[in-house]
Amino acid sequence: MIGVAVIGYGYWGPNLVRNLAETQGAQLLYVCDLRKERLAAVHSRYPAVQITDDVEEVLRDPRVHAVAIATPVSTHFRLAMKALMAGKHVFVEKPMASTSDEARRMVEEAARRGLVLAVDHTFIHTGAVRKMREVVETGVGDVYYYDSVRVNLGLFQHDVSVIWDLAVHDLSIMDYVLREKPVAVSATGMSHVAGEPENIAYLNLFFDSKLIAHIHVNWLAPVKVRRTLIGGSSKMIVYDDLEPSEKIKVYDKGITLNGNPQKNGEKIHQMLVGYRTGDMYAPQLDMTEALGIELRQFVDCIEQNGTPIADGHAGLRVVRILEAATQSLADRGRVIELEQQRLIA
Amino acid sequence: MIGVAVIGYGYWGPNLVRNLAETQGAQLLYVCDLRKERLAAVHSRYPAVQITDDVEEVLRDPRVHAVAIATPVSTHFRLAMKALMAGKHVFVEKPMASTSDEARRMVEEAARRGLVLAVDHTFIHTGAVRKMREVVETGVGDVYYYDSVRVNLGLFQHDVSVIWDLAVHDLSIMDYVLREKPVAVSATGMSHVAGEPENIAYLNLFFDSKLIAHIHVNWLAPVKVRRTLIGGSSKMIVYDDLEPSEKIKVYDKGITLNGNPQKNGEKIHQMLVGYRTGDMYAPQLDMTEALGIELRQFVDCIEQNGTPIADGHAGLRVVRILEAATQSLADRGRVIELEQQRLIA
Amino acid sequence: MIGVAVIGYGYWGPNLVRNLAETQGAQLLYVCDLRKERLAAVHSRYPAVQITDDVEEVLRDPRVHAVAIATPVSTHFRLAMKALMAGKHVFVEKPMASTSDEARRMVEEAARRGLVLAVDHTFIHTGAVRKMREVVETGVGDVYYYDSVRVNLGLFQHDVSVIWDLAVHDLSIMDYVLREKPVAVSATGMSHVAGEPENIAYLNLFFDSKLIAHIHVNWLAPVKVRRTLIGGSSKMIVYDDLEPSEKIKVYDKGITLNGNPQKNGEKIHQMLVGYRTGDMYAPQLDMTEALGIELRQFVDCIEQNGTPIADGHAGLRVVRILEAATQSLADRGRVIELEQQRLIA
Amino acid sequence: MIGVAVIGYGYWGPNLVRNLAETQGAQLLYVCDLRKERLAAVHSRYPAVQITDDVEEVLRDPRVHAVAIATPVSTHFRLAMKALMAGKHVFVEKPMASTSDEARRMVEEAARRGLVLAVDHTFIHTGAVRKMREVVETGVGDVYYYDSVRVNLGLFQHDVSVIWDLAVHDLSIMDYVLREKPVAVSATGMSHVAGEPENIAYLNLFFDSKLIAHIHVNWLAPVKVRRTLIGGSSKMIVYDDLEPSEKIKVYDKGITLNGNPQKNGEKIHQMLVGYRTGDMYAPQLDMTEALGIELRQFVDCIEQNGTPIADGHAGLRVVRILEAATQSLADRGRVIELEQQRLIA
Repeated sequence: MIGVAVIGYGYWGPNLVRNLAETQGAQLLYVCDLRKERLAAVHSRYPAVQITDDVEEVLRDPRVHAVAIATPVSTHFRLAMKALMAGKHVFVEKPMASTSDEARRMVEEAARRGLVLAVDHTFIHTGAVRKMREVVETGVGDVYYYDSVRVNLGLFQHDVSVIWDLAVHDLSIMDYVLREKPVAVSATGMSHVAGEPENIAYLNLFFDSKLIAHIHVNWLAPVKVRRTLIGGSSKMIVYDDLEPSEKIKVYDKGITLNGNPQKNGEKIHQMLVGYRTGDMYAPQLDMTEALGIELRQFVDCIEQNGTPIADGHAGLRVVRILEAATQSLADRGRVIELEQQRLIA
Repeated sequence: MIGVAVIGYGYWGPNLVRNLAETQGAQLLYVCDLRKERLAAVHSRYPAVQITDDVEEVLRDPRVHAVAIATPVSTHFRLAMKALMAGKHVFVEKPMASTSDEARRMVEEAARRGLVLAVDHTFIHTGAVRKMREVVETGVGDVYYYDSVRVNLGLFQHDVSVIWDLAVHDLSIMDYVLREKPVAVSATGMSHVAGEPENIAYLNLFFDSKLIAHIHVNWLAPVKVRRTLIGGSSKMIVYDDLEPSEKIKVYDKGITLNGNPQKNGEKIHQMLVGYRTGDMYAPQLDMTEALGIELRQFVDCIEQNGTPIADGHAGLRVVRILEAATQSLADRGRVIELEQQRLIA
Repeated sequence: MIGVAVIGYGYWGPNLVRNLAETQGAQLLYVCDLRKERLAAVHSRYPAVQITDDVEEVLRDPRVHAVAIATPVSTHFRLAMKALMAGKHVFVEKPMASTSDEARRMVEEAARRGLVLAVDHTFIHTGAVRKMREVVETGVGDVYYYDSVRVNLGLFQHDVSVIWDLAVHDLSIMDYVLREKPVAVSATGMSHVAGEPENIAYLNLFFDSKLIAHIHVNWLAPVKVRRTLIGGSSKMIVYDDLEPSEKIKVYDKGITLNGNPQKNGEKIHQMLVGYRTGDMYAPQLDMTEALGIELRQFVDCIEQNGTPIADGHAGLRVVRILEAATQSLADRGRVIELEQQRLIA
Repeated sequence: MIGVAVIGYGYWGPNLVRNLAETQGAQLLYVCDLRKERLAAVHSRYPAVQITDDVEEVLRDPRVHAVAIATPVSTHFRLAMKALMAGKHVFVEKPMASTSDEARRMVEEAARRGLVLAVDHTFIHTGAVRKMREVVETGVGDVYYYDSVRVNLGLFQHDVSVIWDLAVHDLSIMDYVLREKPVAVSATGMSHVAGEPENIAYLNLFFDSKLIAHIHVNWLAPVKVRRTLIGGSSKMIVYDDLEPSEKIKVYDKGITLNGNPQKNGEKIHQMLVGYRTGDMYAPQLDMTEALGIELRQFVDCIEQNGTPIADGHAGLRVVRILEAATQSLADRGRVIELEQQRLIA
């Protein structure tokens, strides 16, 4: 039985607590938060769980094997490092840290101590995204593009731009679904409220191949859109997260190329590009709550010395892109190289 | 009665001919095309119209006051200049020319000779776009962003990229709907077929104000999307051209800002950004065929010495952006300044 | 402070308990259920609430002023009568009873004792339905038809047909939204599982005026539909409950009738029927949880001796239609008169 | 080469003429209409086709082997009988005739003379409906229900009700797609304009099996809907004719029944009804114009002595249902038996 503490009981913490309370192999021991009223809410709902506003108390307790951190991003590094140094496995909310340097140090600390470091890239544990990865791996062919729109009239954040708030989802999904990693990023955007971070942004991601990726995030849209298009040489996918059941649609559509264009010069192309349209299908999806699956995997990794799907390296790769995108945003879309090799090695 | 000749009877020419045959004040005298079978098609349908493969014959005829040019883009400049020099008013397909230099010379030639030069920016004559401009001018407040997606599984062009084929529509609509003109552009994209122009592209348009514009065009998408979002300080608009009747939806949504954030520092913002959600309405739209309206205006301008809504300057502004976007596309999204002042002056 | 007990903690009971726990002026004293494990669930969640499997204990307690009954339909009559006879106000789930005779006796008992009898017609307390009634009363003109489709792949009930399970919603909405009451009903349907009640049904409702109403309910549909069309002489409404925010759309569409058709005979009609198409608007809706509003009103009625919007008479009218529809269903759609006068008087 | 004449050049006639002009094996010889201006329209468009207002002239011409009749329904019988008696094959618009008696006499006359009698049930020749029939025959299992909605703000007809105008489409599709024929029909509806036929109607169709069919037609709806649901024991279909490409969706959804409910009594059912949800797919559809396919088949049948898919018997079955539905409509939905055996034999 893995003893677990949840640190931070704000927006997401209650979901962690609710799922941990039902995770086989885990025992929820503590919830820690600085706000008395949040602790009171925990107590009335889960009288058996200890509540405290002192994270040191949690980390001192030898029955606690792991902590789940759901505090503001700016505190992730400090709390996670403290926990790792106390020998605790860590499950941390996304984005994993405020800077890639922080993220890298977290990865190194966990590796040095042989502890599990998992990042809560929730979406990659949904039935929809898992199915999308399966289709990409088995049927899409060469991936031509990845295009995502994630917009709505959303709560303005005051400390981070819309990129850190919304694009982080797309970046973590891309990191899981695509085999290739981006080598450079650029971003444009705008803040429409004086003194606030950017509320609309567009990211371009460049790869070594002909793959191109693009993400549109916006807190100020009149309609809610959650739609990703993936184009491949064999199949194309539409992932619409707002569809109640047919979230993933796979289209047998594309172009066909025949002959040897090099030999015959430019004119000949016109005859060689054909269009293919076949059936569409929407595979049945596993509707199990993603967070439950994810926490179960975290516990399994601790017990069996495994590596979570979204480990510290995945978290670091995402933070590195967020960081570079933020840098580009301040410079009207200048391309920022990602020095990917260092990050993954 | 204005005598008109149509030059080019390929994809769009038949629409020009059909509409000119019903345009009050215009008399369709000639259709000119190099292909015998196209001329035969004209003859069987419109036996009273003269057919010819010799553009000089058309331009020599003093009964011809105006020509409508619907040939490939690369020939627009040569044919339009020839017509203007022969004293004919010109209605030319979009994009107006292959380069801004050509477009500028066309504008100058028409101005020098006092001839009408109209560019066929068809969309701006639709009921939907005219209504959108009306709403932008009267109710949207400060325009924050203009975001357009125009994607489908479309015919690959072999001479021009998807920007010249599809983004030209969005640029002509923006030119008409927004009061501000862009001052710089950047574009990223990719060709997924060796030897072919880019089939997917993303454009960013920069303005002197906080307005930001973005266009996504794609010939290789599994679904057809034609959707524009306009966000303003007072209202927001969704323009979905695939909706059968409710193409324009106006949302009384947005954020409200209260207090004096400067005085109180960053912390105070959180309380000051509010969200506003009110009614949505979809105004009734005039469904008259845009091309008919447009050709009628062209004839009116000739008769009354007027200036068409989409005149040579509008066509030039659009071509200048296409040209700069193409330049940026080749350089991973480098920002290209538009030297707007020279263009408009 | 009104002391309340909830009887029945199955599917709907938890919603009653959660809302009552937050209803101003109400104090939740008891939850009563025959199943130990359900009572345990209450206790762990609401330790301050008394749990019991003995309804008599509840009814004996003088602190209990009112009971909310969320048990199977077949038990409503017995439990409600017991509660009324014990002097308790009653809030009962829909449908109110198994027969109109039972419903009528409940109404009479409550009236005799001066107790509040409310029926949980939840939908009529939603922002969408309240807005729909407002539009019908102020702008629709003569109501021509009311057409509702409520289908999905739903849980088969084993004791009642799809009419009692799904059409009850539409009947309660109609009862609230339309000023006229139906005078006759017919229904057709089918059971596709041997020994089970009808899983698909179509109801026709007849009125004294030209109003016609129709309801399609189906437990065996591949897609979920919740859509009501209301056609009127001045406006038309589409109510789509699956739309996340624009649930009510009001169309300024219809026909216009001019001249004097009587005088000129049949031929003249062709010129006199015109079509009108104007703007559509989707009013902003109050998104407050319906059940909370409803329970607050129940408490208010107890305190101020008022009558709930969905009182026993409303519940009785709905049950009478369900009963007649069931009778018609067994006889291939024979029309059953509703003897409305006796019911309402 | 089959010589063909078109009689009636109103709303649908131009489609017949345009398709016949391109039908291999057919030669369009005449267009006949009583209105001079309609004939002038034919002449300017098709100068080689003879025009006349005298149907006798057409029928006398031995080069004319077949006529296509696109006149008002009330004239179908007279014109078709005249043509059959003159030895011409007949292609007649739907509905085939005003009464089943007329239709029966047309069928008998064609049979007696060995002439082809085809009814223009256009929809059954679309790729969507042909695919739907294929799916019904190969994968749907037992058909449980057929439910169709065909509503919009449509042109009021003055001689026939909405049933004859719109439900005729659904009846002809059902006749083609389902193997079973209905044995009885009932209909309710209403006219909301004094002196006009019913503008809204609901039809129930009864079968010898557990199949149930229902059609909702309405000229006075704020939105356009063209949607058919087919539920079967193995698969379910949604046919949405307004979808641009995915008109047919096949759902692997339904219920599963296990065990022996008879043996165990009612209680056991609850455990035995299970729900099945699998993939959905939207098969690619042939987008060829239906009328062209249909006219080609008509010509083939003449040449090869074949029987068209929609022959006179199909037309008669549909008219018989329309007639019975009209009778039921006048009597608040009284069930009318269809005496199907006589019709088909």
